[in-house]
Order: sequence, then C-alpha cells, then structure tokens
Amino acid sequence: MESALDELIAQIPEGSEGMVVTDPDILASYRHDRAFDPSAGTPLAVVRPRNTEDVQATLRWATKHKIAVVPRGMGTGLSGGATALDGAIVLTTEKMRDITVDPVTRTAVVQPGLLNAEVKKAVAEHGLWYPPDPSSFEICSIGGNVATNAGGLCCVKYGVTTDYVLGLQVVLADGTAVRLGGPRLKDVAGLPLTKLFVGSEGTLGVVTEVTLKLLPAQHSACTVVATFDSVEAAANAVVTITGRIRPSMLEFMDSAAINAVEDKLRMGLDRSAAAMMVAASDDRGPSGAADAEFMAQAFTDHGAREVFSTSDPEEGEAFVAARRFAIPAVEAKGSLLLEDVGVPLPALADLVSGVAKIAADHDLMISVIAHAGDGNTHPLIVYDPADAAMTERAHRAFGEIMDLAVGLGGTITGEHGVGRLKRPWLAGQLGPEAMELNRRIKAALDPDNILNPGAAI
Amino acid sequence: MESALDELIAQIPEGSEGMVVTDPDILASYRHDRAFDPSAGTPLAVVRPRNTEDVQATLRWATKHKIAVVPRGMGTGLSGGATALDGAIVLTTEKMRDITVDPVTRTAVVQPGLLNAEVKKAVAEHGLWYPPDPSSFEICSIGGNVATNAGGLCCVKYGVTTDYVLGLQVVLADGTAVRLGGPRLKDVAGLPLTKLFVGSEGTLGVVTEVTLKLLPAQHSACTVVATFDSVEAAANAVVTITGRIRPSMLEFMDSAAINAVEDKLRMGLDRSAAAMMVAASDDRGPSGAADAEFMAQAFTDHGAREVFSTSDPEEGEAFVAARRFAIPAVEAKGSLLLEDVGVPLPALADLVSGVAKIAADHDLMISVIAHAGDGNTHPLIVYDPADAAMTERAHRAFGEIMDLAVGLGGTITGEHGVGRLKRPWLAGQLGPEAMELNRRIKAALDPDNILNPGAAI
Repeated sequence: MESALDELIAQIPEGSEGMVVTDPDILASYRHDRAFDPSAGTPLAVVRPRNTEDVQATLRWATKHKIAVVPRGMGTGLSGGATALDGAIVLTTEKMRDITVDPVTRTAVVQPGLLNAEVKKAVAEHGLWYPPDPSSFEICSIGGNVATNAGGLCCVKYGVTTDYVLGLQVVLADGTAVRLGGPRLKDVAGLPLTKLFVGSEGTLGVVTEVTLKLLPAQHSACTVVATFDSVEAAANAVVTITGRIRPSMLEFMDSAAINAVEDKLRMGLDRSAAAMMVAASDDRGPSGAADAEFMAQAFTDHGAREVFSTSDPEEGEAFVAARRFAIPAVEAKGSLLLEDVGVPLPALADLVSGVAKIAADHDLMISVIAHAGDGNTHPLIVYDPADAAMTERAHRAFGEIMDLAVGLGGTITGEHGVGRLKRPWLAGQLGPEAMELNRRIKAALDPDNILNPGAAI
Repeated sequence: MESALDELIAQIPEGSEGMVVTDPDILASYRHDRAFDPSAGTPLAVVRPRNTEDVQATLRWATKHKIAVVPRGMGTGLSGGATALDGAIVLTTEKMRDITVDPVTRTAVVQPGLLNAEVKKAVAEHGLWYPPDPSSFEICSIGGNVATNAGGLCCVKYGVTTDYVLGLQVVLADGTAVRLGGPRLKDVAGLPLTKLFVGSEGTLGVVTEVTLKLLPAQHSACTVVATFDSVEAAANAVVTITGRIRPSMLEFMDSAAINAVEDKLRMGLDRSAAAMMVAASDDRGPSGAADAEFMAQAFTDHGAREVFSTSDPEEGEAFVAARRFAIPAVEAKGSLLLEDVGVPLPALADLVSGVAKIAADHDLMISVIAHAGDGNTHPLIVYDPADAAMTERAHRAFGEIMDLAVGLGGTITGEHGVGRLKRPWLAGQLGPEAMELNRRIKAALDPDNILNPGAAI
C-alpha cells in the first residue's frame, strides 16, 4: 500500500503538497463522525483536496487500485455516513472553502467545505438568505448538507437542501468531473441528475462545487410558545395549524427535553408540562401577527395550559435557542443514540406515544424533539456506553423506533441520512423493488463500489 | 405483429377490455402532440390502461417483444416528447383519473391522467392549493406535468412540479412496479429516486400514481402592470425586484405579443409599448400592497411609461388572462414554433434582444413572452408551414435561439422538456460528461431502450 500511496502523492497536481496525510494521530481523528460508531475502521490515509482536480486525481487512483473512498464534510453526520473503513481513504472536503455570491442572479457558487453558517453569513452581506438550517448549522459543511439533503427548523415553510441546489460539480468514481445544472432557476434539459446527487450520501460521486439558489433576506418573526398537558394535544394543534397557514417554524419538545434544557438554561420553562411547542411566522407585519394569533388560538383550542406570543425578535430567539439547545442538554444526561424518524402528520402523536412505550419497555430515557410541522422527529435515546446491557437495550430501542415509524407509514430518516447505522432498516422501508432500483443506479455510476461502500444503500 | 397484439390483449387483466385500440382513425389521432412534428410515425396500437396492473402488463409484453412504448398524457407537450413512432405503442394515461385528497396530511394521491386544473379544483374543495400552473393547465395532465417537470406562472415564488412531488408509483420498462417516497414531508431514505423520475420525460418508467404536496389556499394577489419603451428597461426592473422581494408572478410580453393580444381582446393595451410586465404579490393584506408598491416604484425607477396597480382580484386576473392568452393570440398570426429557453436573470435582456436580431436575420416574426422572474422565455416563432422556405428559416431560427441561450449560460428548455424537437441541441448544453451520465442512467433502467426511444436523451 505504501507504493500505491506514493503513486497518489506523485499524481497530485502542483500546489497540493501535504494533501495526503498518514500520521496515525490524524488518521485516528478521522475515524468517526458524530455517530461515534464503535466499529469504525482506520483509514489508509486522509486526503484533503484543495480543488476538483485533486479530487479527480484521488478517485482515478482509487479506482485503479480498487481502494474505497469515504467522502467526509465536517464529520458532523449522525448516521455514520462518514465512518472510516479499514484500508480506505477518507476524503475530506474541509480545505475547499471558496464562495462567490452573485446578488444579481441571487445565487452562490460554493465549495463543499464551507460551513452552513458561513454560507448564511456570506450571502447575508448581500441582503440574501440561504434558508436550510440544520441545528448543527454552525459546525456542519454545505457539502455534508448536500450529501444528506439536510433539513432544519425553517424547512416546514422553506423546504430542504435539494430545493436550493441549482447546480453541482461532481467527480465520479472513475475521476470524471461532471457539471450538472447551473445558475438557472428553471432547467429541464436532460435527466434531473442534479437532484439525484443531493441526498446520495457520497455513494455516487464527490461534490466539489454547489450552485445555491438564495432568497431575499427573511423578515423578522413573530414567535408563539405553548405548553401542553399531553403530547396528543400538541400534535393535534400542529395539524390544525399546517392545514391553514404556513408557519416558518413549528417545533416540539417533550417533557424530558424541557427539563434537560431548563436544567442548563434556567429560563423558567414549565417543568411539569408534557410538551412545549415553539412556533413562528415570518410573514411581514400584520400578516405575521395574524399568523401568530391564529397559532396561539389553535394552541388554546387544543387545551394549551399556557400560551405566550412575542413579536420581539430577541425574545423569540431565546425560545428557538432553547429548542436548538435540546440536543446538547439531553446529551448532558448520557451518551445519545440520535433518531431521525418521520411520519405523515396525523401519525405524529402515535409516533411520540409509541416511543414513550419503547422507552418504558427498555427502561430507558428517550426524549423526543421534533420538527413537528414536517412530521420529522428526533427521539434522543440516552444511555451509558460503559453499561453493556443498557447499550444493548438502547440499540434495540433504536431499531424498534424505526420499525414503529415504518409501521406508521413513515421513514427511518427524515434529514440525517441512512449512513451505516440505519442501513439494516432501509429495505424494510423501501421494499425489494425500490432497493433493487437503488442498487441499479449505484452499479451504473460506481461499478467497482469505490464510493462510500456500506453506506446509505 | 397481429399475434403479438393478440397476446397483449389476452394478458390484460379482467375489466380492461377495449384497452388496446388499433382503429386507424384513432391511431392517427395519437400520432402528434402539440409539437405537430411532421415526421411523426404511426403506432402499432394505442393502449389505454385503467390502472398500474394494465401498465405492467403492457410493459412486460413490450419488453418481451422489444416493442417501443411512447408514454403520453393529454398530448399537450410542445417538444414532441409524445410524438408517435412507427410500430410503437402509444400508452396514454388518459383513463387513469382517480384522486384522493387528504386534507390532514395536506397531500393528494393522483393518477396521471387527471388534468392539472382538475387537481387544483379537487384540492380547493378542501381549502388547499396545488401551485404549479403551466399556461396549459386546463388541458394538460398531471402525469405530463411530472414527465416534464412542468413550470408555470407562479413558479417564480412557488417552485416547479418536482417541488410538490412527494412520492410516485412507477412502472419500469420490464413491468416492475416500484413505489418511491410517500406522504412524508421529509424523507431521505435511499437515493432520491422520486426526484430522478420527475422530468425524465417517460424515458425511465411510466408514472401511474403521484403523491402531491399541497399548500393552504393562496391569498388573493395585488397586481401591477407596467409598460416600457425598451425591453432592457423591463428586464432590469425584474432584477431589481427579485433581489428584494418574492413576487408571486413576474411576467413579460413584448410588443408583438401585446399587439396580438390587443387584436383579439380589445382591452386597451398600449400597442406602442416595447414591453409590458404583469407582476403580482400574494402576500396578505398590507404586505402584498407593500410589495405591489415596491414593484410599481421599481418599474417607475426603470423608466416605465405607465404603471397600473390594483388589489381587485378580477381586475388583476384580466391582465393575467391577457398574458395567458398571448400564445393563442400570436398563434392566430400563423403556425408556431414554440421556444422555451432560459438564462440566468442578468442575461434576460441580451436573450430578448438576441432573439430580435435572429428574427430580423431570418425575416420572421418572433414574439417573446417570458416567465421573466425565472429567466424562462418563450420566443414564439411564427411561420406558414405551406411556405417551405419560411418553414426552413423558422427551424433555423429555432436552433439559433437555443444556441444563443446556451451561449448566455442558459438552457434549451426551462419547463417544456427536450422531447424529440430539442434533442439535437442537448449535448451542446450538457457537454460530453453529463451526456454520458444521462446515457448510463438510461441504460441502467431501460437496457432495451423500450421507453420513449429518441426522446429527451
């Protein structure tokens, strides 16, 4: 393998020296993403390309030597899509960080390594907005967002990553660089291949450039917070709201999440509530206020014990921050297995109560937070990895929650991806015909199975 | 072939008698779509399936006998995607017309033969809205919309067909029925194959069921109409507007279109204007009014000769109707070659002036209407098919307009599809690598090239 690596180093275009890293300490730091899969391997090398040509050289070489390549953004994935494999290359796009904003076409051309938050900041300087906002937006890369078709809080109104990707440059397994789409708001020439790569989790190619559609800056939001005696009441309010208006946020926290956040932030949340909703409308002026009033009324009608509305952005942001803080707050209770199951909206209450039953069955704490307006939930399974029996129960619950979601007509993953952790459950959701179709596409684009083998499909 | 057809008829599930049609008059009526390609062939038979099983039987049989299948919605396509081939089957989905609306999940499950307008109507009864609105919405089918990823007037704010397709049932070339996606607002399990089929123009499979995402009913719009002395001024106003707000419509008509509409409707349009814009905002109440005011000011700032605003829905609708009527009005001047080129927004003025030059070069009338906010234009080339020299000039102009668009960083088709008419220009836009990728996907899904051969890719 030494000589194969030497060959790769020799092929690297000038100016990219130091791109191939074999230092054992560095290799160790690229074994895991945030799924912390204990079965992670140790890569042969970490490759840090600066540009498309570097990625091409790496994949050409990998195909020649039949060496697997695990593409990696910032390693914040929660499904193990970037878990390293023994003897593989981890190709990290972290050094590819250029951005060019075109305020006239309202697009940005971005390299994959830039953080989501950096994209938001760069476009905001032009009065523009890139909506998708995963909770991890300050630490996750736009390339990783494209790989998983990441969502977030504002998606209930503004859609997910794929809705903002107008074009891609992608390097295929054999090193061919392909441009798909571009800065055109409507374009139906040829098969919709741009869309095929968004959410393909690094299994079909390595994205080296993304053309993003941007929106005019978002208006400030009116925020409504409500607490409930029951999860069902909160879930029913969600359906009432989404049937009538388009909130810009409709988030759910259960009792465990409320208490975990309150433990940390001491902001006076109602610890005795079974559920809390954080909702917002970013419609301008009186329309946003009317939406807020409608949502407050819907919460009241569904038996909310307390409803609080504010048009003060800072006050509203405090509640959104509380919701965003739920994952780290629950994580303070132990290690997390972070679920990402989704269901059609009417099944939301059944999903949450089913998760509570699974928690009881396995004597586990499972806190549920949710992008409720999308039916996308994140049950957070708390466990102690030093406790083997508890770890096993946690993993059993992890699978049972996916089975529950699929049984309710839902999905095993709404926005995190299948990665390696959820792969055993994929066929149960898709069925044999769709699985076969996935395999056919994969085989057509990556016949040697070089790209992220064992992930996603 | 008789015996092969007999075999097909014998295989048809009970209840679908009369599905296979060979009456020569009927066959003749299925030779063309609205591209009226003179090179259209005569099909072996027209097949009118009632359900997914009928489609499966047809495709299984076609694969066995290596007989091409041309899928067809309502035959309103403008790029010849449903032009019949000699000896092929035309598979029309016109009999598949069921719809089930679920107001709670805000989705509808629709068979492909239902008209776009019928979908809108059925969901409106539940206070819901299906946004995509091609100008042909009263006569085009939802299956055809999915096949071409159809757009329309409201897409500038609300996106195109693919943004509303949550799930599909698709029958592959070999007769396998596959379910992709479903009524889940966020779902990233497996490759994003639902998206791969939207816009694939019947080359990868036959869509037999569509799960659509719906929105709450649209608010009534404020409409702003403005006339200009120059096309450039109108195009520049578009860029000013889209950089700041999100209009729900931003439509352009050139002088020829204005005059053609005025000839027919006598509504007092300014015949001497070089361009007319019809813009709208559907933001509620004061926000919509503020948008309208902003657009009116932008038009004025860019030198509009006349600006008219109204919040009266009927008055606004009259101008939208005038814009929608532009194609039939120009068609009254002669036969049309209907273009569908798009460019990044800043190139809009160059595209329109380039088209005017092509018209002058070839001594043709070419009227330009545009979904200006998307950079998507429809140059309407008027010609007399009885005049061979003129027909040749028209076809030359048709190609030159596509070359012009591609030269400006644009696309040969924004929303109509490549079909058969535009296929010779596809490689010029996509380049060899993307073309090869298109072919690989096609070969993986339809190795015998049974499905719509010669169309799209």
